[in-house]
Amino acid sequence: MADDKYTIGVDFGTESGRAVVVRVRDGAELGSAVYNYPDGVIDERLPSTGERLPPEWALQNPDDYIGVFKNAVPAALKASGVDPADVIGIGIDFTACTMLPTLADGTPLCRLPEWRGNPHAWVKLWKHHAAQPEADQINETARRMNQPWLARYGGKISSEWFFSKVLQILNEAPEVYHAADRLIEAADWVVWQLCGVETRNTCTAGYKAIYQDGKFPDKEYLAALHPDLADVVETKMKKELSPLGGRAGGLTEEAAAWMGLKPGIAVAVANVDAHVTVPAARVTEPGIMVMIMGTSICHMVLGDSLHEVPGMCGVVDGGIIPGLYGYEAGQSGVGDIFAWFVDNAVPPEYHEAAKARGMDLHAYLEAESAKQKPGEHGLLALDWWNGNRSVLVDVDLGGLLLGATLGTRAPDIYRALIEATAFGTRLIIETFEKHGVPVKEIVAAGGLPEKNKLLMQIYSDVTGREFRIIGSAQGPALGSAMHAAVAAGAYPNIQEAAKAMGKLKDEVFRPIPEHQAVYDKIYAEYVILHDYFGRGQNDVMKRLRKIRNQARGLE
Amino acid sequence: MADDKYTIGVDFGTESGRAVVVRVRDGAELGSAVYNYPDGVIDERLPSTGERLPPEWALQNPDDYIGVFKNAVPAALKASGVDPADVIGIGIDFTACTMLPTLADGTPLCRLPEWRGNPHAWVKLWKHHAAQPEADQINETARRMNQPWLARYGGKISSEWFFSKVLQILNEAPEVYHAADRLIEAADWVVWQLCGVETRNTCTAGYKAIYQDGKFPDKEYLAALHPDLADVVETKMKKELSPLGGRAGGLTEEAAAWMGLKPGIAVAVANVDAHVTVPAARVTEPGIMVMIMGTSICHMVLGDSLHEVPGMCGVVDGGIIPGLYGYEAGQSGVGDIFAWFVDNAVPPEYHEAAKARGMDLHAYLEAESAKQKPGEHGLLALDWWNGNRSVLVDVDLGGLLLGATLGTRAPDIYRALIEATAFGTRLIIETFEKHGVPVKEIVAAGGLPEKNKLLMQIYSDVTGREFRIIGSAQGPALGSAMHAAVAAGAYPNIQEAAKAMGKLKDEVFRPIPEHQAVYDKIYAEYVILHDYFGRGQNDVMKRLRKIRNQARGLE
Repeated sequence: MADDKYTIGVDFGTESGRAVVVRVRDGAELGSAVYNYPDGVIDERLPSTGERLPPEWALQNPDDYIGVFKNAVPAALKASGVDPADVIGIGIDFTACTMLPTLADGTPLCRLPEWRGNPHAWVKLWKHHAAQPEADQINETARRMNQPWLARYGGKISSEWFFSKVLQILNEAPEVYHAADRLIEAADWVVWQLCGVETRNTCTAGYKAIYQDGKFPDKEYLAALHPDLADVVETKMKKELSPLGGRAGGLTEEAAAWMGLKPGIAVAVANVDAHVTVPAARVTEPGIMVMIMGTSICHMVLGDSLHEVPGMCGVVDGGIIPGLYGYEAGQSGVGDIFAWFVDNAVPPEYHEAAKARGMDLHAYLEAESAKQKPGEHGLLALDWWNGNRSVLVDVDLGGLLLGATLGTRAPDIYRALIEATAFGTRLIIETFEKHGVPVKEIVAAGGLPEKNKLLMQIYSDVTGREFRIIGSAQGPALGSAMHAAVAAGAYPNIQEAAKAMGKLKDEVFRPIPEHQAVYDKIYAEYVILHDYFGRGQNDVMKRLRKIRNQARGLE
Repeated sequence: MADDKYTIGVDFGTESGRAVVVRVRDGAELGSAVYNYPDGVIDERLPSTGERLPPEWALQNPDDYIGVFKNAVPAALKASGVDPADVIGIGIDFTACTMLPTLADGTPLCRLPEWRGNPHAWVKLWKHHAAQPEADQINETARRMNQPWLARYGGKISSEWFFSKVLQILNEAPEVYHAADRLIEAADWVVWQLCGVETRNTCTAGYKAIYQDGKFPDKEYLAALHPDLADVVETKMKKELSPLGGRAGGLTEEAAAWMGLKPGIAVAVANVDAHVTVPAARVTEPGIMVMIMGTSICHMVLGDSLHEVPGMCGVVDGGIIPGLYGYEAGQSGVGDIFAWFVDNAVPPEYHEAAKARGMDLHAYLEAESAKQKPGEHGLLALDWWNGNRSVLVDVDLGGLLLGATLGTRAPDIYRALIEATAFGTRLIIETFEKHGVPVKEIVAAGGLPEKNKLLMQIYSDVTGREFRIIGSAQGPALGSAMHAAVAAGAYPNIQEAAKAMGKLKDEVFRPIPEHQAVYDKIYAEYVILHDYFGRGQNDVMKRLRKIRNQARGLE
C-alpha cells in the first residue's frame, strides 16, 4: 500500500550481523542481508599483534559491528525494494553480555593505537569464559555480604556477565580499566553510534549487570571486590535505564549515511537477541516458555509475580516485556555440542553417505538416529561440553557420555546428545515450576527447530509439553523491528506490536505417551548423574580441569 | 645344522589361525603363514540359513580350524625351507573358552545336516556374551550352595566360560544339548582331530570349566542349575586331565596328510593362546606379570602359593606352568576399544592427514597424542566398552568418557582411552598385590606393544613398573612350538624349553616420575568412578542396558 511504513531490525549474532526490513502493518519480512564479521570470534590470536590468547578467551572487533550497518542494512533495503524514505525506525538486538571499554565519546579503546595491542581493550564476547576467578570472587563476596540481589540470579553470577568481565580487566589490565571512561554493553554501544546518545537498556542492565530494585550493586560491595571498583557505577556506567521499546534518540546524519536512511528516524533502545524474540513469537503473557535454540539455548518465561528460582540466570522486572517479570535460564551448549560432534567425532563413512544423498551431515545423522526407538542406543550423556549455565551455573563441568559399547555408532551418540540437551531443558522447566513459575507450553525459536523435526519431537517427548515454532527464521531481527515500530510510535506498546507483527507456525509437536514413559526412566538417571557430578558428590570434573590447567601451565 | 629338529606351533586366534615353524635348539622362527577363517566371527547371520543372530552372539565354524592345518601349516613349512621329515612335533593354542558340541567320534554337530540350521550346534566363540543369564544363575547358585571353587574365580564365573555356554545350550536348545555326546573346548577338539585321541588340558579345564582341587563341580550343584545338567561331567566330558607339555598322541595318517608331515610325531596337549605365551616370554617364575595385549588384555602371573583374589579370572594349579599356581586376570576391551574409536569416532581430517603422511591412523593418532603431557586433555574414561572382566566381572557395564569440552579433539580421546586401559591394568595389579600375589615387573606380549611406544610408556607411568617386551611377534605360536618340543621329548620340561627357546627384547620402558605423579592423581579419580559405577552405588549402566534391551524387544 502506498502509505505502508517499515522498520529495520538488526540482529548482532556471534559470527555475523543480520538486517531485516519489516512492514509495520503486519510484520512481513521484505528483505534481509547478512554481514560476516571480518574478525569473527577472536579466540586464538589478537589481530593487532598476533599474540596468542589464553584458553577460554573470546573477543570481537567493534568495527565489525559498524560494518553491519554499512553493509547489511543497505543490502537488505535493496533486497526489499522498500523506499528508504518509508523507513520510520531502526532497532537492534545483540548477544550479551558482550561488552567493551570506551572513551567518554564512545570511541572503543581497541581502536586507539596505544591500546590496540592489549587484549583487554577489545570487546569481550558473551562466550569469553576467562573471568571465572572473578565470578567466584563476586559470588563469595556477595554471599559473605549477604547481597539481596544474589538470589535473583539463582544464587550465582556467571563468568560471562558484566561485572565478572569488568573485574577481570581491572585485575589483569588496570591500565585499560583506568583508561576507560565507559564500560558498556555492545548493544548499547551500537545504539550510541546510531543516535549519538548513550543509553542503558533495562534488559542487559538487569540480566547481566545486577540491576535490581532500582539500583546497581552498592559501593561498599564493589569496594570489597576491589578498591578501584568502588566508583565504577558512578564514573564508568550510565545509571539511568531506558525501557525496552523506548526511543533512544534520532538517527544521526553520519549513521544515516552509512545505511542510506533518513536522519532523525527513531532509534530504539537496545535489546538482547533472545529476549527480543519473545514478542516476535507472539508471547507476551505468563506460562508460555520461549526457547531460543541455537548453539546454546536461552529459556525465557514471563511471570506476574516475583520468585527466586535457584540456578536460573535471572529474573528482571521489565527485562523482556515492560510490566512483567522476565525469567531467564539457559543451556550453554546445545547446537554447539552437535556441531562439535559432527566436526570432531563422525567417521568418513557418514560424511560420504550424507554427501551421496546430497544431505547435510546433521540431517543425515538425524535421519539415521530417527530410525531408533527411545532408549534403543543404551547411552546417556550429560550436556556439559560447554559447562552448565542453569541449574548448576558452573563452567568447569565437562561433557559425559556413558554406556558406549563396541557396537555404538555415530547416530547413536548423536541421538544421545540431542536427548541430553532435552533432559537439561526438562530440569530447567521443573526447577521453574517447583519455585512458582509455571511453564504450560513452549514456543521454540532460533536455528535448530527450523530443520530438526526429530529434535523437536524428542524435546516434546522428554518435557511432556506441546511445542510450537516461531513463524520467522529471523526472530530476533523481527523482534528488533517490532521494538523500532513501538519506538517510532506506530504501536502504543510491544503487546500490540506483537499481535500485529509477531508470528507463530501452525505445526504443533505433541508428546507421544510411549516415548514419554521411556524418557521418564532415562531422565531419572540423568538427574542422578547431574546431581552426582554437579552438586559436589564427586567433583572429578573440576579436579580434572585443575590437572589439565596445571599440565597446560595455567595454574 | 644337519641334525636340527623343528616343531610347529599353531595359534588359533579370533579371526585366523597362524602356523610357525620353530627350531628346537634355539627357538628361531623359520617360517610362518596365516589362514583367515572363511566364516570369521559369525555374529550377524548364521551361514547355513541366513538367520539373524541375537545381539551378543559370536559363533565360529569348526571346519575353518581344519582349514588352518590344511593351509597355514604347509605354507609355513614351505616358507621355512625345513624338511618336513625333521619336524618332531606339533602343538596348538586356542582362544578360550571357545567350545562346541560333537558326537562321540568328534564330529561337530553343526557339520550334520539335521543340526546345521541350529545356531547352538555351532562353535561358541570366547566372546559370545549371550549366556549372561546362565552365568548369573551359576553364580547365584554357587553362592547359595556355598561352592568352595567360587572364590578361585574372584567370586564370579563369566558368561564367557564353559558352563555358562553349556547351560545356555541346554536352556535354549535342549535338543542340541541332548544330541551332543561331547561338549568340548575347541582347543582340545583340534588336538583330537590331529591325533585321534580325546584329551582335556589342565589350562582350559581349570580356568574355564571350574576344575579345582581335582574335580569338576559336583552332581548336586549341577542338578541345581538344571536337572538335565547333573550328569554332564559323567556323560559329555572327559574327566581325566592332561598336563601342559604332555603328549596327547601321535599324528594320524589323515592329519599328517593335511599338513605334509610325518604320521606319528608328537601332538602336544592343547593350550590357551595367552597362557602358552608366558614361557615364550621366558617367564617361568613368580613375580613377573605377562600381559598379552591385543583386542583385550590377559594378565598372567605365577605364584608358589594359593591365594583367592576377588574379581580375578582364576587361579589354577598348573594352569600355566606345571608345579606353580597360574593366576589370570583380564580386561575385555583394549585394542578393541582403540579400533572402535578409530573406526567410529575419528573425523575425516585425521584420516586424510594420516594418509598424507603414509601412516596408519592408529600411529598418527598416537603421534599426535604423544605431544601432550599427562592430564593435558582433561579427560577421563572408564574402559568398559566391552564390559569389565576383572575386577568387577560384569559384561553389562558400558564405556564412559568424562570431561569433554568443545575443544576436545580426536587425539585427546585416543590418549584418554589408552590411559583408561592402563588404569584398568593398575587396578588389577593392585588387587593382586593386596591379596598376596606380588607383581614386581611386567613383560608385554601381543600385537599392541609391538607398534605402540606411547602406550607402553603410559602403562609404565601409570603402573609405576618396568615393562619389557617379548622377543617374538608370534608369542603364542612360539609357545605352542615349545610345548611341542617338550611333548616330543626334546626338553625335560617347559622351564628348560623356555631358557633355550623363549625370547625377550632388550628394550625396557621405565616409569617417568613426573608422569607418575600426575597419573597417580587421575588414577585416584578412575578408582572412584570405577567403584561408583561398578560396585552398585549407581547401577545406571545396567539399567540403561535393560531399557535398551526392552527397546530392542529382547526383554
